Amino acid sequence: MSIDRQLLGSPVSPRLSEPTAEEICRLIYLPRLTKGFEKNFFFITQINAAHLIMLNQQHLLPAASVKILARGLLDLVNDGPAAVKLDPFKEDAYLNYESCLVDRIGMDHAGRLHMARSRNDILATIDRLQAREGLTGLIAQLLTLRRLLVQQAKQYADAVMPGYTHLQPAQPITYGFWLAGIEQALARDTERLAAAYAHIDSCPLGACALAGTTFAIDRQTSASALGFSSVTQHTLDAVASRDGLFEIMSAMTQLATTWSRIAQDYFIWVTNEFNFIDFPDSVAGTSSIMPQKKNPVALEYLKGRAAHVLGMYTAAMSAQRITNFSHSGDANRESISSFPDMLALCADAVEILTLLVRTGRPNRQAMLSRAYADFCTVTDLADAMVKHYDISFREAHHIVGAVVHEALAQGLTADRINTEMIDKAAQDEIGRTLGMSAQEIQACLDPVKCVQGRLSGGPSAASVNAMIADSLAAIADAAGLNQQRTDRHKDTADTLRNALEQLSA
Amino acid sequence: MSIDRQLLGSPVSPRLSEPTAEEICRLIYLPRLTKGFEKNFFFITQINAAHLIMLNQQHLLPAASVKILARGLLDLVNDGPAAVKLDPFKEDAYLNYESCLVDRIGMDHAGRLHMARSRNDILATIDRLQAREGLTGLIAQLLTLRRLLVQQAKQYADAVMPGYTHLQPAQPITYGFWLAGIEQALARDTERLAAAYAHIDSCPLGACALAGTTFAIDRQTSASALGFSSVTQHTLDAVASRDGLFEIMSAMTQLATTWSRIAQDYFIWVTNEFNFIDFPDSVAGTSSIMPQKKNPVALEYLKGRAAHVLGMYTAAMSAQRITNFSHSGDANRESISSFPDMLALCADAVEILTLLVRTGRPNRQAMLSRAYADFCTVTDLADAMVKHYDISFREAHHIVGAVVHEALAQGLTADRINTEMIDKAAQDEIGRTLGMSAQEIQACLDPVKCVQGRLSGGPSAASVNAMIADSLAAIADAAGLNQQRTDRHKDTADTLRNALEQLSA
Amino acid sequence: MSIDRQLLGSPVSPRLSEPTAEEICRLIYLPRLTKGFEKNFFFITQINAAHLIMLNQQHLLPAASVKILARGLLDLVNDGPAAVKLDPFKEDAYLNYESCLVDRIGMDHAGRLHMARSRNDILATIDRLQAREGLTGLIAQLLTLRRLLVQQAKQYADAVMPGYTHLQPAQPITYGFWLAGIEQALARDTERLAAAYAHIDSCPLGACALAGTTFAIDRQTSASALGFSSVTQHTLDAVASRDGLFEIMSAMTQLATTWSRIAQDYFIWVTNEFNFIDFPDSVAGTSSIMPQKKNPVALEYLKGRAAHVLGMYTAAMSAQRITNFSHSGDANRESISSFPDMLALCADAVEILTLLVRTGRPNRQAMLSRAYADFCTVTDLADAMVKHYDISFREAHHIVGAVVHEALAQGLTADRINTEMIDKAAQDEIGRTLGMSAQEIQACLDPVKCVQGRLSGGPSAASVNAMIADSLAAIADAAGLNQQRTDRHKDTADTLRNALEQLSA
Amino acid sequence: MSIDRQLLGSPVSPRLSEPTAEEICRLIYLPRLTKGFEKNFFFITQINAAHLIMLNQQHLLPAASVKILARGLLDLVNDGPAAVKLDPFKEDAYLNYESCLVDRIGMDHAGRLHMARSRNDILATIDRLQAREGLTGLIAQLLTLRRLLVQQAKQYADAVMPGYTHLQPAQPITYGFWLAGIEQALARDTERLAAAYAHIDSCPLGACALAGTTFAIDRQTSASALGFSSVTQHTLDAVASRDGLFEIMSAMTQLATTWSRIAQDYFIWVTNEFNFIDFPDSVAGTSSIMPQKKNPVALEYLKGRAAHVLGMYTAAMSAQRITNFSHSGDANRESISSFPDMLALCADAVEILTLLVRTGRPNRQAMLSRAYADFCTVTDLADAMVKHYDISFREAHHIVGAVVHEALAQGLTADRINTEMIDKAAQDEIGRTLGMSAQEIQACLDPVKCVQGRLSGGPSAASVNAMIADSLAAIADAAGLNQQRTDRHKDTADTLRNALEQLSA
Repeated sequence: MSIDRQLLGSPVSPRLSEPTAEEICRLIYLPRLTKGFEKNFFFITQINAAHLIMLNQQHLLPAASVKILARGLLDLVNDGPAAVKLDPFKEDAYLNYESCLVDRIGMDHAGRLHMARSRNDILATIDRLQAREGLTGLIAQLLTLRRLLVQQAKQYADAVMPGYTHLQPAQPITYGFWLAGIEQALARDTERLAAAYAHIDSCPLGACALAGTTFAIDRQTSASALGFSSVTQHTLDAVASRDGLFEIMSAMTQLATTWSRIAQDYFIWVTNEFNFIDFPDSVAGTSSIMPQKKNPVALEYLKGRAAHVLGMYTAAMSAQRITNFSHSGDANRESISSFPDMLALCADAVEILTLLVRTGRPNRQAMLSRAYADFCTVTDLADAMVKHYDISFREAHHIVGAVVHEALAQGLTADRINTEMIDKAAQDEIGRTLGMSAQEIQACLDPVKCVQGRLSGGPSAASVNAMIADSLAAIADAAGLNQQRTDRHKDTADTLRNALEQLSA
Repeated sequence: MSIDRQLLGSPVSPRLSEPTAEEICRLIYLPRLTKGFEKNFFFITQINAAHLIMLNQQHLLPAASVKILARGLLDLVNDGPAAVKLDPFKEDAYLNYESCLVDRIGMDHAGRLHMARSRNDILATIDRLQAREGLTGLIAQLLTLRRLLVQQAKQYADAVMPGYTHLQPAQPITYGFWLAGIEQALARDTERLAAAYAHIDSCPLGACALAGTTFAIDRQTSASALGFSSVTQHTLDAVASRDGLFEIMSAMTQLATTWSRIAQDYFIWVTNEFNFIDFPDSVAGTSSIMPQKKNPVALEYLKGRAAHVLGMYTAAMSAQRITNFSHSGDANRESISSFPDMLALCADAVEILTLLVRTGRPNRQAMLSRAYADFCTVTDLADAMVKHYDISFREAHHIVGAVVHEALAQGLTADRINTEMIDKAAQDEIGRTLGMSAQEIQACLDPVKCVQGRLSGGPSAASVNAMIADSLAAIADAAGLNQQRTDRHKDTADTLRNALEQLSA
Repeated sequence: MSIDRQLLGSPVSPRLSEPTAEEICRLIYLPRLTKGFEKNFFFITQINAAHLIMLNQQHLLPAASVKILARGLLDLVNDGPAAVKLDPFKEDAYLNYESCLVDRIGMDHAGRLHMARSRNDILATIDRLQAREGLTGLIAQLLTLRRLLVQQAKQYADAVMPGYTHLQPAQPITYGFWLAGIEQALARDTERLAAAYAHIDSCPLGACALAGTTFAIDRQTSASALGFSSVTQHTLDAVASRDGLFEIMSAMTQLATTWSRIAQDYFIWVTNEFNFIDFPDSVAGTSSIMPQKKNPVALEYLKGRAAHVLGMYTAAMSAQRITNFSHSGDANRESISSFPDMLALCADAVEILTLLVRTGRPNRQAMLSRAYADFCTVTDLADAMVKHYDISFREAHHIVGAVVHEALAQGLTADRINTEMIDKAAQDEIGRTLGMSAQEIQACLDPVKCVQGRLSGGPSAASVNAMIADSLAAIADAAGLNQQRTDRHKDTADTLRNALEQLSA
Repeated sequence: MSIDRQLLGSPVSPRLSEPTAEEICRLIYLPRLTKGFEKNFFFITQINAAHLIMLNQQHLLPAASVKILARGLLDLVNDGPAAVKLDPFKEDAYLNYESCLVDRIGMDHAGRLHMARSRNDILATIDRLQAREGLTGLIAQLLTLRRLLVQQAKQYADAVMPGYTHLQPAQPITYGFWLAGIEQALARDTERLAAAYAHIDSCPLGACALAGTTFAIDRQTSASALGFSSVTQHTLDAVASRDGLFEIMSAMTQLATTWSRIAQDYFIWVTNEFNFIDFPDSVAGTSSIMPQKKNPVALEYLKGRAAHVLGMYTAAMSAQRITNFSHSGDANRESISSFPDMLALCADAVEILTLLVRTGRPNRQAMLSRAYADFCTVTDLADAMVKHYDISFREAHHIVGAVVHEALAQGLTADRINTEMIDKAAQDEIGRTLGMSAQEIQACLDPVKCVQGRLSGGPSAASVNAMIADSLAAIADAAGLNQQRTDRHKDTADTLRNALEQLSA
């Protein structure tokens, strides 16, 4: 987008003797100005309203100005962001907003609103208002996903499948158990996101440029008006720090890692070779050349997007690392410039993941077949030896290891393990036979029984259902807190508007 | 280090028909085995003791074995880690430890200890034991540093200096105010570290390979014996997840960012051109060629090391991102293999930073001189116009901007601003003069007065002292919690040892 | 943007039984489709033209279809990208383009163009066409910047200033010498970018999905038609690999590091305390509150943006790291999805940097003053002792070190160093005096003389001018190669268009 | 490691009034000093020898000192690195070395060697000597691996398997074809590594601290003596820049990505479900609990280590990003402190990968079976329709898509596709039947035939063999260049030693 040099009037401040260079406006200011201006407009309005309320309460403004300012803000918000003609020669969103207000109600009134503050504390406040809104939205999405996982965990608590470690068959589990497991991981991700709210829940307003002000302001008033729990006391810290946002970004990075691992499990399971899960055609891509193709494009999207989340976090921390401890463009603008993109990316990804979890159907028969194969129940054989034949686990482990080795050499499957094979191995390993009966052996090798015996957080239905109950309680608690915060944000908007109405009356 | 092929006996398990390749042992197992084996040895012993206590309580072991195992563990711990002859053909620390125990007390007893568990849950438990120890140690260091900062903030609350934004002089602050500000940032870093403890404070033991066990274990018993607050219920989640460690790593990444910004402030201030801070010769480096040199090598170290912290975090999250949600080498070993290095790096850096803060001396005279220069008090001039001459802040800002522009053009310093200059600018900007007296003007331009008028979190001594009081209270609270956790870790060690003594009696 | 479900017709392929889910279309396909569609449209047209030429040459298409297809492509390109009504239910840019062509010239002809190819090789080809265009554009910008640096290096070859190591004064240099130095660094950055061209200069077309085709195609023909130097032989490698793009990305990451270091030097020098460089008001920002402010926002932008370049590279490599060696969405779409943004970011940054270099003016007087101060010439004093008094450098270094220490203790500046002080230190260090004359001493301490004696790549004007001559030759060579490539890209477009005209005749 | 305060003598230079603090020595200097000191010792010796040769040639040293210095260096190198008692109070490797030399031959001679240089140019030179040695070693390993891949590609050129895109069966390829493909990727990785050599093949010596020297040195002489092709002209650039090393690091990052993708392919193929590849038990890990387990630990190692390579690169670039363009600890020490680790990591990984490629055996039968399954040959059916039935590819694609859809609905495998099914679909899609014969259909569906028809870089044996021939030629070229460089490094060592012998005679 090129800049119309006709826009070019006087410099922003008489301090500067010439207007800003076209390149600076076009490449630096304009993209910052247009990106998310609609949101910025509403948050600047809220901040202006809160500031006006405080200035009025502290008798720092003439009554006439208060009234005209209140009316001006109301009119402007009614007209909406489009009312502000964006001009990069005025640097940023705040100064464009102020300039529009000056045009509408005159410099004498509009120019009074910026006393006892600075763009530095305003910017820090906008960042938090924006972050808290996005954060609670993302948490709400995660709670929806977790409810879905819990519901499906219940539904598939009896869908026996092999559990894998190192992607090699390990021991039988169920699909419901896996679902309950990833819900646990997402629960901690949610906790971290929710905890980060505390570090964006204090208000920087009143910090001004970095050193506060000598005007007799009341910082608590404007903080409360904006729905913050407290004031960010130290005025340098208030403008220099964005760690609350970085904390959210790191929590999102961990969330992305979780969704990426879930996607990778599905990605493996949806291969023809595993064939554990079916997604409907509606979530698949196809090929322009290979007519048979049904491609898991949504899973690849989830995996790839997670890498971008990590990259954005790396960029943010790298940008911030060597900045001076104060306000500057790299510390406070560049370091968090991807924050809204990262939030949007996570919201999209969670929506896609929710779609996939909702529409994926486990292939119970294929899962069960493989749970019978690959010797993935033989740990229970070793355990049974320990329980009933008074030998150490390590010896039992060696005996069964030898049995498996022999079976593989002979091309036998697990269900062909018999008394004789075990006794031969036992004789070799521990110098005596065990005499396990065929029935006893087969009981160990049945994956359904394997699963049902595993309590205390294991894959048995009883255990999964107990964990589900805990999860539902945790989800309800988290939802309660998140709703309370969301309500507060909404109440803030309503209350500020009402206050403006009163002041303008 | 080359591997002695003579070591090479039989494979680890009869399942495998040949011993591990020399390359695998030399390049993969050996470095993992030797790195931090001393710590691993003690944590494996603790886990073995807790497991033995639980197995005994649940009557899952013969009494004779319990007694011999308890004695064997005590003897081994008395002999120390050197008693275990490390052999990479036995894969890892746990199997080397077990093998040593077998040599000492025989397979029949030693082999019984591994029932109802796996290296997967053991490894997850070691990771948490190690993390919690390092974490509380780092927090203790940070609390020491914060106490020092608070003490110096009090001492230098009257050392007036220019505050900078964009590294350009902004408004006067004090060195004590700056110290109090970075204390606030470090306080939030500490909070994040302390909060991460919650996610490593549950015990994975009993999760076994991934699916729990059918043995009648009591997971709460072993968890309590190891000083954990709870059990990590879901057995797949328990072995698949390292997010508690990643959370600590991300908190350390933010901490590193904070220390790096502090170092960068000092790095600028210690230049001859700024000359705000003196460090003693004992913390400086010199040049092999330039005889006049005194180089801030410790500050450069702090800045550079912070980048490595970020790199380690990036590596960890990248390693974890596409792993399946289960136990595997990349998910659970490689992803956190830098965790101990990262902790050690942070501990070193905090020690160096503490040294620098302790020994740095502000150059009060140079600071104050620059606070008088560079027009950094003129915001107060604009504020005074607003307070006493009924004009809007924006207009006052423009008047003073024009005054500064004119003063610079004439090569005048701020103290030469006079009534005439202001009135000329006011006439131009708002069409009338103000008639501020010389006395009034000079009062605004005195940085010491500027500072003293800034309450509510600003740089005045009153404000700094109020914030110091809050900081001391916060430090005391954090120290109390951290000490309680440290004590619990120590009690765990003592209690486990006592229990072993009793069982072996 | 919401998706109109009315768009929704049949699935893309009869292989799939239902249309794509709205979420997939809205969140995955639509953003990919709209981002850069204009460029994609022209590159797809070029690829279609080259493919058509080749199919015609190999007699793989009926003559009538060739003519109609050629005309159809010409008509479409004349109508421009807006002629394609973008529909995310058709997945991506290629299928939308094909669908538009089908609508215009009928399935029987349009449907023939996709024989012997796949979106996989088309996508790989688009990526290279796009990359080579952006790459040569960025190189051209860098060559402009380097010419400017060389010109200014000449202009300021006599502007003596202190050189710093560890940001402490080290030895005198000149501003021209510094400019010549960063030109050298940018020269290597340019070399790396130009070298990366080789790895995107072969054509993947004909690789089809991953296994080539049984049609009797001639891959060299389509490669030449598109202006590629060769064919990417191995068909799996051709669709699986994006390393050529990653190589450009890593070269851009290094470039960003260079520009960020340059910006950091300026950022320090533009402080009031250093006062070495003046930028005009037109490239500065101001403050909404502090009337005296002139902030180096463009430098902060450069520093911050460099961190985003690193983040994008990290994301790309992390996305690619665990993909299978073949075509997939994470390997080939997500991994390089930031490539165009990264190129645009670099182009913007180089434009801003060029503006700053062009408009920055060194403050010769302030530079020279500081070169006299801070003992930054005393290495020459030690060197003189070695040259004329037969002592070892290390001893001379110690003598001068002691002299500086004493001078600092007495508060003396370098010009106060005299024969007596040196002899006292010499007596202490080496047991004898040197008797250097005052004249000899002062000659060493003159920064202008220090600079002029430094040949062989050092800061003397003679040396800088020699290096400038080399730089100009290197720039000319690089410009020649880059122009040749740019011309080839343009010729390709013209030739393809002409060929279409002929085929359609 | 604690520091013995008794070591503590006088400060390094009389410029400083007190010795370095214990913390600085213990935490900063000591780790740097001990890490890789053996290599540093030898490189410092080489640099000292080259410098001595040059000083002697330029008549800058007394003949007696030259002889004694040459003898002293020879004696020291004969005694080896252990002869230097490392003392962190002397800062770094260079000063420890010099101090040792002073002890042995006296200050008057030893102290003369440091004229006309600085640790800054020495350090930059060490970095390049070390980098070039490691780099050529890594390239040699890669050439070995590539030869192995080529040899196996030939061996398995007829081992038909399914090729995958999106991890879904796409079209038949061969294992040999896959091997030839990854060889291509590794070839480009090798090219990038070899190209980076050019940017470390000039010598920084003579740049001294940053501004060169007034001594009449001959930089070309010392550069040649050290086996460098040229001199790094600009003296500030010479000490400020490490981009040559970063270029190697980025090439290693891409190499790591390649090996990680290879490992991921194997990781999938070694699952029981795919069962395409067998690795011997000697490269597998086992489980402490599950007796059946054989885990691909080496593959997980490769995948995880690749993430650390990326992390190290991120750390390096992040450390460098905001440093001033000169010498400093963060720019030149911290930024590249992981360089040797990264090289060692890559060397280890390539050794492990080579072991895996050498010992892995494709399961030809399983591969072929799956190539028959999953409809992965049906593209050839569509192609046959285009070739013989005059329909467009898009129509053929739709017909076959409908056939596959119908077959899946009926539970039929690809070999059950018949004339009737095709005609039904053709009627639906294009309104006419095709009448393909059963024989014609089956010919299309035979994966062996599919493969053999794919020339021009495709998977046919003819094509693979042609590519192999090209690869062998490329490997031979690369090996020739690498050997030449390796020889030069060795010759340098020999020549320098001989020169010292002569000078000492």
